[in-house]
Amino acid sequence: MTILDLIDIKKRGEELSGQQISYIVSGFVSGAISDYQMSAFLMAVCLKGMSSRETAELTGAMLRSGDSIDLSRFGSLSVDKHSTGGVGDKTTLIVAPIVSSLGGIVAKMSGRGLGHTGGTVDKLESIKGYKTTLSPEEFYAQVERTGIAVIGQTGNLVPADKKIYALRDATSTVESIPLIASSIMSKKLAAGAMNIVLDVKTGSGAFMKTLEESEALAREMVSIGKAYGRNMAALITDMNAPLGNAVGNSLEVIEAAEVLRGEKAGDLRDICTELSAQMLVLCFGWDEEYAKKRINDEIDSKRAFKQMKRWIAAQGGNEAWLENTALFPKAPITAEFKAEKSGYISCINAEKVGLASFVLGAGREKKDDIIDLSAGIVLRHKTGDYVEKGSTLAVMHTSCDTRLKRAEEYLASAFQIGEAKPQKCELIIKTIR
Amino acid sequence: MTILDLIDIKKRGEELSGQQISYIVSGFVSGAISDYQMSAFLMAVCLKGMSSRETAELTGAMLRSGDSIDLSRFGSLSVDKHSTGGVGDKTTLIVAPIVSSLGGIVAKMSGRGLGHTGGTVDKLESIKGYKTTLSPEEFYAQVERTGIAVIGQTGNLVPADKKIYALRDATSTVESIPLIASSIMSKKLAAGAMNIVLDVKTGSGAFMKTLEESEALAREMVSIGKAYGRNMAALITDMNAPLGNAVGNSLEVIEAAEVLRGEKAGDLRDICTELSAQMLVLCFGWDEEYAKKRINDEIDSKRAFKQMKRWIAAQGGNEAWLENTALFPKAPITAEFKAEKSGYISCINAEKVGLASFVLGAGREKKDDIIDLSAGIVLRHKTGDYVEKGSTLAVMHTSCDTRLKRAEEYLASAFQIGEAKPQKCELIIKTIR
Repeated sequence: MTILDLIDIKKRGEELSGQQISYIVSGFVSGAISDYQMSAFLMAVCLKGMSSRETAELTGAMLRSGDSIDLSRFGSLSVDKHSTGGVGDKTTLIVAPIVSSLGGIVAKMSGRGLGHTGGTVDKLESIKGYKTTLSPEEFYAQVERTGIAVIGQTGNLVPADKKIYALRDATSTVESIPLIASSIMSKKLAAGAMNIVLDVKTGSGAFMKTLEESEALAREMVSIGKAYGRNMAALITDMNAPLGNAVGNSLEVIEAAEVLRGEKAGDLRDICTELSAQMLVLCFGWDEEYAKKRINDEIDSKRAFKQMKRWIAAQGGNEAWLENTALFPKAPITAEFKAEKSGYISCINAEKVGLASFVLGAGREKKDDIIDLSAGIVLRHKTGDYVEKGSTLAVMHTSCDTRLKRAEEYLASAFQIGEAKPQKCELIIKTIR
Repeated sequence: MTILDLIDIKKRGEELSGQQISYIVSGFVSGAISDYQMSAFLMAVCLKGMSSRETAELTGAMLRSGDSIDLSRFGSLSVDKHSTGGVGDKTTLIVAPIVSSLGGIVAKMSGRGLGHTGGTVDKLESIKGYKTTLSPEEFYAQVERTGIAVIGQTGNLVPADKKIYALRDATSTVESIPLIASSIMSKKLAAGAMNIVLDVKTGSGAFMKTLEESEALAREMVSIGKAYGRNMAALITDMNAPLGNAVGNSLEVIEAAEVLRGEKAGDLRDICTELSAQMLVLCFGWDEEYAKKRINDEIDSKRAFKQMKRWIAAQGGNEAWLENTALFPKAPITAEFKAEKSGYISCINAEKVGLASFVLGAGREKKDDIIDLSAGIVLRHKTGDYVEKGSTLAVMHTSCDTRLKRAEEYLASAFQIGEAKPQKCELIIKTIR
């Protein structure tokens, strides 16, 4: 058997054995299999698919390419959460304090983002002093003391994923359920948590545009996690509109603090309640209703907010900024985006709001681009609101006024205003176990 | 538009414009498009196909990547022939003298072979003194004087094909009708002949195993040639059994001389008559029956054989070897392969005979391997013959007796002997114009 035979098997749409998949992954990581052979293989996978067994074997082969975090000292209490990415998704900043405040162990590695806004780690860096890198000893010590730590990806976790993802990104082989599922799940398994809740976004602002695709991805990932002995749940959630009101790094941290202080109801708090509940159900075997009651108590009593401050302080951040969010540096330029006519907002296209935020400076296109942590957008209204002509729909934050024009164009195409009040969409579309 | 967008278009199974295809080919040749991007694109083409328009555009883009031979001085009389490769296929050695003896202009470049035996140029090199390289001036002068020259591929003809083929060979993206058709036809168009006859083999010894595939490939190539103003015909011919009796370089030259001396009837002479007739039909507008009559006259009168000697002598070869084929060096070791039982030969698997010849030393696996020009196999019997147990089915020629065992194993699995006389297969299955 050579790599040519293995490419050919997949080209014909046939199944590869676990041993064959391991040979491909380890050969690619070692350099024995060239980039051009791997990209031909990846394109064949994109077009011919993989069975669930093959996808789980691929995940395992990638997992074995590097180190794993050992959270076994926390028994069955370690819990992780992963979102497939959306516009304005700051759920980790809210969910992690809630769950750890209630006794779950959130020892989390999070990524930096490419695209509309930064990742969780970029957002956390907007808090003065927050250290996104801890030594393993510091990391475990903080988790043992506080139940929570969130750091950037470190060490040699899943090098196969890094190398494969870079190639996929350069060869138009990103869109493939087995490749996406194995990429996400190899990292989640390496991150060590016993309980994993996935938030798979669907809709215009999400990577998966249709419910069918999102559900297929969610089922594949749940099945992989179970195959490796983890407790799994996945939510399919709506990402047709941005989540909450803020899009941009420090703007999102401020909004997360507001939710945890109990000052803000709406879609963002709802989805965080749901995600936290699923995490607690897996950790403690609670029923969902009880979990949600405990979560609401935790927010309303400010215990969750206190846990957020404890976490940020433990990791070197200035917790005073969370109490008084006016301390966050402000973008030097703000501009209002106004309604061109009166009516009900029937739709706010998440992807276009994301692009507006991106052109204002909140995201990065390439790995080494520098993010403007104060740039972004705050929506003043959301889908279903009635607005008068000339009222402010959103505020743009940026350091460079030449960027406003393109952002305005994106916002103009993002907002749709109609005469009839639109039907309310379900935020949580489906739960998969 | 970036290469990622173009890969994505093909991944979705959509059509690319001529400009987009040119961008891909010229970018790959210049190095602006990397190997790994090209191999992802090639795999998408393998699995999603190309329309006839796209395939013709791809051929044109490859053709424009290098130089072309200018045969315009020969007006409408230049004629070329291409076989998709088969076991024991020495038709060029026979057809080229026949057609040029009757007034066609055969100014041909031929390849070296990878696989079972060498290519036409390797076979010709088994004649002492034959020069496979001529300067352009020598080449044109010889063609003007004799109407025939056959040399190795020279100059900068279709560099895109060399680079793409090397990548396809290393990424399991060889089997694809648009890629095969554009590879063959870009080289045929660059070789300059106004009239082109294709011999597309089908069956166990051919690259295309089924009639449907062979016919699709033939139609695609005929359509490309016509799009570029050439007169085209294609034969679909049977390659379930080896062509003629000899497989191996000098052994095949000897057999070609026997056919041209009129000493040998059978499948090889039949297919050469058919191919020559198609070439003359395109060159002179003759009808097929008349062309075949002229061809038989040309062989029976020995004028075709005289033209072969004239050609070989013009190109520096020792023509006496054709008169007296005992002058060819013999392999030091010969061994007979005998029938294990009595009966009718129902099948001789061409591919397995080819492999037997290959292990005896007649072929090369890598470009730089040295061929044993005297090695190979001569079949004593062909499909349909009745043989007694113990009679000789084939003679193996080699310089190394340790090779005999594996060759015998291949031959044992190649020959099938049954009780009933098998039905005769048609050699020429279809003609496509």
